[in-house]
Amino acid sequence: MIEVFTTGGTIDKVYFDALSEYHVGETTLPDILAENNVHAPHRVTQLMRKDSLELTDADRATICEAVAASDAPHILITHGTDTMVETGKALSGLTDKTIVLTGSLQPARIKNSDAAFNVGFAFAAVQALPPGVYVAMNGQIFDPRVSHKDRAAGRFVND
Amino acid sequence: MIEVFTTGGTIDKVYFDALSEYHVGETTLPDILAENNVHAPHRVTQLMRKDSLELTDADRATICEAVAASDAPHILITHGTDTMVETGKALSGLTDKTIVLTGSLQPARIKNSDAAFNVGFAFAAVQALPPGVYVAMNGQIFDPRVSHKDRAAGRFVND
Amino acid sequence: MIEVFTTGGTIDKVYFDALSEYHVGETTLPDILAENNVHAPHRVTQLMRKDSLELTDADRATICEAVAASDAPHILITHGTDTMVETGKALSGLTDKTIVLTGSLQPARIKNSDAAFNVGFAFAAVQALPPGVYVAMNGQIFDPRVSHKDRAAGRFVND
Amino acid sequence: MIEVFTTGGTIDKVYFDALSEYHVGETTLPDILAENNVHAPHRVTQLMRKDSLELTDADRATICEAVAASDAPHILITHGTDTMVETGKALSGLTDKTIVLTGSLQPARIKNSDAAFNVGFAFAAVQALPPGVYVAMNGQIFDPRVSHKDRAAGRFVND
Repeated sequence: MIEVFTTGGTIDKVYFDALSEYHVGETTLPDILAENNVHAPHRVTQLMRKDSLELTDADRATICEAVAASDAPHILITHGTDTMVETGKALSGLTDKTIVLTGSLQPARIKNSDAAFNVGFAFAAVQALPPGVYVAMNGQIFDPRVSHKDRAAGRFVND
Repeated sequence: MIEVFTTGGTIDKVYFDALSEYHVGETTLPDILAENNVHAPHRVTQLMRKDSLELTDADRATICEAVAASDAPHILITHGTDTMVETGKALSGLTDKTIVLTGSLQPARIKNSDAAFNVGFAFAAVQALPPGVYVAMNGQIFDPRVSHKDRAAGRFVND
Repeated sequence: MIEVFTTGGTIDKVYFDALSEYHVGETTLPDILAENNVHAPHRVTQLMRKDSLELTDADRATICEAVAASDAPHILITHGTDTMVETGKALSGLTDKTIVLTGSLQPARIKNSDAAFNVGFAFAAVQALPPGVYVAMNGQIFDPRVSHKDRAAGRFVND
Repeated sequence: MIEVFTTGGTIDKVYFDALSEYHVGETTLPDILAENNVHAPHRVTQLMRKDSLELTDADRATICEAVAASDAPHILITHGTDTMVETGKALSGLTDKTIVLTGSLQPARIKNSDAAFNVGFAFAAVQALPPGVYVAMNGQIFDPRVSHKDRAAGRFVND
């Protein structure tokens, strides 16, 4: 069983014409997994719908509690990229599970979004990596304690 | 360095209006990797452009030779799904590398194709799994010696 | 009321993995019109599902009868491009209606297909043009009696 | 010659990861017309890049001047939907040309956007309609003096 927790972020952003704005919408993960014929046993739970810049310490505590309470050994978390490494660090005490964070730089609903690739990438990483906390972005596995998002370059890099 | 070899298959099929037919075209892998901001070091080599039902023993020998000649420890092969496990078995003697085969059930150029997800999935699998030969499809890792494509169901299953 | 008759053609082609082939599928017109928030009154009827190279004289008679039997003044017909002008000529006796034929060079289900643009283009043409028979392709209105598809160039041109 | 003026609006909105925001980007019109194999003679000029709620009287004067200065009989204007009818009214004195305004409710770069359909629709309308000013949205031709956008319903309606 692969446990998928969604927290929001760019991957789930939708454009609302009525507001001429872009908001975090319902999670796209069930659609992404269904469209890609994923048959590995999994379940998806939407924990929150937030831009990661808006995540509070209480939100991170909620994420940690959900991970700790899960009986699944493989935990995939979708998350905004701006504070992904912070949440990764917050999860670092939960060392008996393989925990992989991913997200996207372009909303899943945009043409040529990196969402499907990144979710696929994270979905393999969470099954194949040993217990630990990882950021899976840009086709690479990062350790959140020694990596960060380079906003200007639009990618994750090692410190 | 991740070595990517492409052999054709549905993932690379394009629709040619001039023929009212669907053929294996130029590989889509460089586009898929670029569009998804993959920064892991990699190189892509197009070995052949064939529907996997048309692959001959000589083609499989060519694939095995290319894998054996590579100095990369991680080899990703895109391949038609119909004979993917056969090629996987043919590669099974090359046990010092991690070799992952993937492909798609819908061409990469089709809306909602499973191509980007599958390539992302395989791209993590090839980095995270121990040496061996694997089929990475449907969000799962299969051993080609004890799995097959269920054509009617449109998915891979264990024997 | 805009009457939409579908006959098949590339616009409705789908890729069937089980056959590794491309066939004319269920018409995509209702999806195209719904996705694009079309609120003009219309109805869609699938007359046949054929590659236009396979259309027979009997098929063209069926199309002409359906057009003649319709009480709508605006008739939009989706059709394969290879024999679109032939069907246009066969319809030329029905001079009390505005009849517009369109189709696409790439299946509607392919990324960056010309299907949505062409259907939009034809949907305005059928409302705005005077009675007559027209081919609406490549952003242009053609008279089927004096135009043809240039297969090599992948576009319609005047004779 | 079809003269295309772009002014911004949702159709040209892009998601900027660096800002976690959505802005009006470079116009998508040249890409839309090229991808859809439009061969009708046309030229595209980007007049401004604004959300239509931000258009000022001076901007509308600029649009009117550009239309008046064009020697083309067919003028297509892409525009945000929120104040499209206002710009249409401002153009109503220019009665010797066929002027068609269109836009989209979803950015062109989003999957299943209405942009390509709407541009196709407007591209035929501008060629086929008599001189006058029109709003071409939702598969219908509207007179901007007696129509408006129903924001809640996400569509244009007659007053």
